[in-house]
Parts: sequence; C-alpha cells; structure tokens
Amino acid sequence: MNTINLDYISANPLLPEVQEAMIEAIKKNHGNPSSPHQLGEQATEVLEQAREKAARLINCASPQELVFTSSGTESINHAIKGIALAKAGKGKHIITSNIEHNAVLKSLRRLMKMDYRVTSVSVNEYGLVNPDDIAKAVTDETILVTIMHGNNEIGTIQPIKEIARITREKDILFHSDAVASVGVMPIDVQYLGVDLLSFSSNQFNGPSGVGGLYIRRGVSPLPLIDGGAQEDGRRAGTENLIGIIGMGVAADIAFREMECRVEHARKLKDRLIRGLKESIEDIIINGHPEFSLPNLVSVSIRYIEGESIVLMLDEKNIAVSTRSACASGALRASHVLLSIGREYADAQGTLVISFGRDTKESDIDRFLDALREAVEFLRNMSPLYKKAKAE
Amino acid sequence: MNTINLDYISANPLLPEVQEAMIEAIKKNHGNPSSPHQLGEQATEVLEQAREKAARLINCASPQELVFTSSGTESINHAIKGIALAKAGKGKHIITSNIEHNAVLKSLRRLMKMDYRVTSVSVNEYGLVNPDDIAKAVTDETILVTIMHGNNEIGTIQPIKEIARITREKDILFHSDAVASVGVMPIDVQYLGVDLLSFSSNQFNGPSGVGGLYIRRGVSPLPLIDGGAQEDGRRAGTENLIGIIGMGVAADIAFREMECRVEHARKLKDRLIRGLKESIEDIIINGHPEFSLPNLVSVSIRYIEGESIVLMLDEKNIAVSTRSACASGALRASHVLLSIGREYADAQGTLVISFGRDTKESDIDRFLDALREAVEFLRNMSPLYKKAKAE
Repeated sequence: MNTINLDYISANPLLPEVQEAMIEAIKKNHGNPSSPHQLGEQATEVLEQAREKAARLINCASPQELVFTSSGTESINHAIKGIALAKAGKGKHIITSNIEHNAVLKSLRRLMKMDYRVTSVSVNEYGLVNPDDIAKAVTDETILVTIMHGNNEIGTIQPIKEIARITREKDILFHSDAVASVGVMPIDVQYLGVDLLSFSSNQFNGPSGVGGLYIRRGVSPLPLIDGGAQEDGRRAGTENLIGIIGMGVAADIAFREMECRVEHARKLKDRLIRGLKESIEDIIINGHPEFSLPNLVSVSIRYIEGESIVLMLDEKNIAVSTRSACASGALRASHVLLSIGREYADAQGTLVISFGRDTKESDIDRFLDALREAVEFLRNMSPLYKKAKAE
Repeated sequence: MNTINLDYISANPLLPEVQEAMIEAIKKNHGNPSSPHQLGEQATEVLEQAREKAARLINCASPQELVFTSSGTESINHAIKGIALAKAGKGKHIITSNIEHNAVLKSLRRLMKMDYRVTSVSVNEYGLVNPDDIAKAVTDETILVTIMHGNNEIGTIQPIKEIARITREKDILFHSDAVASVGVMPIDVQYLGVDLLSFSSNQFNGPSGVGGLYIRRGVSPLPLIDGGAQEDGRRAGTENLIGIIGMGVAADIAFREMECRVEHARKLKDRLIRGLKESIEDIIINGHPEFSLPNLVSVSIRYIEGESIVLMLDEKNIAVSTRSACASGALRASHVLLSIGREYADAQGTLVISFGRDTKESDIDRFLDALREAVEFLRNMSPLYKKAKAE
C-alpha cells in the first residue's frame, strides 16, 4: 500500500516539473556563475531566471531584493543575527513572540549571550500576537522585531501588516519567518510591509536545502557567510545551482496555481476537521479558526501520547507528525502548545496533520479511519482515560 | 567545437555516476531525515551513507566528525567564527597567512570588528608559510591558527603537519581550508593532525553548494546556523539531501580513483608547464615547483593583461581563469600573487589553468596553441612589450 504523506510540513514531494528541471540541470552540468567566461555567463543567466521567479512569488519590488540561502533556517539566522550585528550601535533590544520556530529562538539565544536583550510577547489561546503588545515592548534600544507569519505547529497567522505599521512608524526593522506560509498561501512582502522575510523552497514542492531571504532595498544585515562576492556580496559561497533551479520552477508553479492550491487545501482542512470532530471525542483543534494556514491541522487528542499514534499510523504507512520535524528528538512538550495554554499532557497528545497539492480526499478519509482505530486502541489501554471516564 | 574547460577550480563537471545518483534521488523524492516516521528513517539512512563516504575521503576517525554544510565557504566561516566565539574567554588572537582565500580573509575581518586580533604571516617566493613564523606569532591569547592546505591560485601546498605539531604542543586549535585539495590529492586529517578542515564537493566532481567541515571529536565551534537539531546540533536547517547524495558518490569515487587521478593530473601539469616554457618567452610559473597541487598551473605572462587572454580564449571556446572565481568582479591584483613578490603588472598578466579527470592531453595542446597565438597578438599591440624588447 502506498504511503500517505500527511506530514507535508516536514517534507513536500517535488513537483514533476521541478524534478524535470533539476534533472535537466544535472545533465547540462552548468558552470560557476562567478566565472568570467561563457560557462559562467550561462550559469549566471540560469541563476537570475530562478531569482526572478522566486522573487515574484513573494512580490519583491525587484529580484535583487531576494538572496538565495541554503534553508529557511539559514535565512532566519542571516536576518536576525545580521540585523542585530549591523544595528548594535543603535541598540541591542529585539522583540519576538513566544511561539516562534527554533531557528528564531536559538538565534536569539545566541545573541543574548552577546549582551542582546530579548522581549518575547505572549500569545492568546489561538496563538495570536496582539500588535499593541509589540508597540508597548518597544524601547529606544529596540532594533528589530521578529514575528513569524504562519505558525508551523498550529497554523495561526499573525497580524503582520498591523505589526509592520508599528515598526515602520517607530523606525524599527521587522523580520518575519514565513517558512510555513510562502507557497502555501499568497504572501506579498510589499503589502505586508516587512523589511525582511524568510522562506524555504521545500514548502512549495521545491527541493530541501534551498531557501530565500527577502531583504528590502536599503536594508543591510551583515552577511552570515563571508567570502566571495556572490549574491551581491550578501551571501558568499558557490551557489547550489541545481537546487536553486528547482526552487525557481517550484515558485513559478506555486505563483500560478496559488488560488487553486489554497482552495484545495481549505477543502481538505474542512473535511479533516469535520471528520475529527465527528469521529473522536475529547479533542481540541489548536490554532485560530479563521487566521490559519490552509494546509495544516493541529489536534490534541486527550489521554494518549501523540508519539504512540505516529508509530501506529506509521505501521499503516501513514506519515503524520507530533510537531515540527526540526524539533523532533527533543522530548519536551512543544513550547507553542504550552504558550497557547494547553496542559502538558494534552500537548503530548498532539498531532500535526499537514497536506498539499497532491493530497486526496480519500487520503484524509483513510487517515481518519486509521486514527479512529489507533485512538480507540490506545485509550483502551490508558489509565488516564479510564479514570477520566469513571469520574 | 566543444568547450575545453581548463577552469576546473571554478567548476568541476559532475561525474556520470554522481549525475545518476542525484537523478535517482530526485525521482525517489526522499523525506526529511528529522521526521519520526518511515519516510524520515529512509532519508536518514541515505544521509548517513553519504556521510560515511565523505568522511572516508579525508579519513575521519568517525563519520560523526563530519558536518555537511552548503559550501566550502560556509565550512570556513563555521570553523573560524565558531571557534573564535567559543574560545573568546581564553583569548581573541588568531594566526593566519597572507595568501588565504577570501572566505578566510573576510571571516577574519568580521572578527576584527569584534575586537579580535589577527596576525598574518608572510610567505616566501613560492608561497610557502614557514612554521617557525607561526610558532613565533603565538601569544597567550592565541586561540586559533588557520592556514590553507593547497592554494587555489598558485597551487602551493603548506607544511600543514609541521604547523599542526606546533599548535598541538601549544594547545591551540588548527583549522585548514582544504577546499582546493580534497578530492584532488590524498588528504588525511589524522595524518595532518588538524582540528578542523573545510572542503567542498565540487572540487571532486560533486555538486556545487555542498561542503563538508571536519570537526575533530572533542572540538566544539559554536554553530554558525542555529535552529533544529540536525547534524548533531552543529548545523541547523533541513539538509540538501540531493546534493549530499551527490557529494557522497563523488567522494567515494575520488577515494577509489585517487592514485590514478593524481598521476593523470601530474602528467598534464608537466606537459602544460613544458609547453608553456617552450612556446612563450617571458613567463613566470608561480607556486612551489614540488609542494603543489597536481591539477593547477599559475603562469604570469609578462607585458599583457590576463583578462584579455581569457576573453580571446573564450572566443575559441577555451575556459581559463585569471584567478579564483570567488574573487572575480574584484579588479585589484590578486593578493596571493603580490604576496609572493610578483610585480603588480605581472600579477595582472596571470592565468590560472586548472584541469581534472576528464581533461585530455589534446586539450592541453589545443590550449597551448591558442594561448601562443593570443599572446603574440596581444604583445604585438603592447607598448610595454615593445619598450622592453627595444631596451
């Protein structure tokens, strides 16, 4: 039986067109874009074509506002550390939220060891940041606000435009980690008003290990990787041209298909949430009911362990996740779920179901059937469940 | 007419076996190694197989000593900045040489803005560092020595083992940028005695945009990219698995073919140097006559501009370079050539000819013919040449 991938947030399959373009690039054996001869010129042309496509997906004012990186994580590190170091003369205070991705959290922790101060605003029960809290947290020392766009664990989408209004007014730079959003829903950096925005190719069926960082014209984070003059001196190192070509094609298709893609995901999401509510009792759907990524559902299933469900479903060739793949291996409960007020036990009983372009309604139905069985089995063994039901 | 690539140092063509493996990986659509289900396990297996192969190429004591990065440049940044930040408590002094790659130079410049002190030792006319100079430069504050293995512009190979003896004795960490050497000649990190060593997949016919950093067990540079737990917490970000698979295959073949590869390159190098000396007067072969990379020849052709020769050869579909592709776009004369005592004008008249596994003797001969013509043409127009000959 084919594996049903409902863990798109960890890994999107490559689109056939992306596969084709990457295979063609491998066969063509492009040169180094920095070389001064024909082989270099041809490679540069291909690189810049990909940049145009990726830049258009997020509506950069010019392709030169887009820097290619090796991952969303690198983009986030580059934006946060790069602005922190560039602006240290002005101040060392940064504002973030309690539900950011590890790449943001750990970049900030690194800076805190270098005497930067970080204020982390809390979120409400739906995971929403209140823009007023950001405004209140601003001090004369504040140099950067970094708030994610769509949350990768619960899907909640932050009021980025409202936050940008505040940062613009106060002349503070604003970075948004949009790794979980770009390619999944329309993202327009000019409409949002952000100064920096991080994203990753794999979230829209491009290859892993390729990311993008939008840097608004006039904004200059220090490079994270110093060396040659690649990427206009903003990111050194010979380019992963094969991956970048794949990202370009994936971005182009995501741009053109966006409307259908969102509609398709919304339909699946509705079906999934309806199915969950109908077939399993004592569950909590996490995240905001309206301001939320269309391709992801987080559900806390009370009285059991998410890890056990993942294993049982895995045996039936259904891939789901308990949380961000980047946080796997960490046994603690998700800081995102705790931040929206989930109890520790409920946080441990949480599944993240994420899907994409190729997911079918029948996949959702097969998952729901398998989940129902797994939950029944696990709850029958759960002393917690028995105790709760006896009360 | 087919293009003759004599600029391997900028871009090696992919081996057919590497192309095949990457194409297979693209078709297979691997998952995310960090995922907790089957798709993740399969991806992890593939990732670790590649790590074993790449680690064997440089004779790591264990594959876990190898971290995958997005380029040689990232590896160098990670090693230098990571050790500098990790060891700041002990001191802020770093020793390097005058002929390092831009990735080293610019990483060090970044640190100098953070109050680190750098001593740069000079090299002799062949580009050799004297280990005694390193020993003399050491102070109580010294935390790191970073000296490249093979120079990417003139080919000179440094006495790494002798330098390592000094750093070990004085309990200072030693990093070597071996980007131009790994895969080109045997490199054994245990024999050399280095603590960190940077290299890049493309120098041995693997894909661009994939690098490796050897970190000796027990050595802990701070991560350059913070976030998820990938690479044992040493380098966050979802892996470029397709590229890494290509690197693994390329490393495996380089390891098995090493002896033939070196012999083939040496033969071409001898033929090229002999041809240059026989057919063009007033030239200088740069670099050490013995301790030198087998796949690269640097020649200063007096009275003319290297850039003009590159353009003329390019019209005849022969790709050569005037210097490192990473430094192209910079109009200044090469700091490496000035450091070994070349006059400014001679430095500007320098070509770097680099070749590899698929280069044929006839390619060298065709290049020599075309070069002879180009030099004659350019010198006939050169007032400098006429003046020199009139004297």
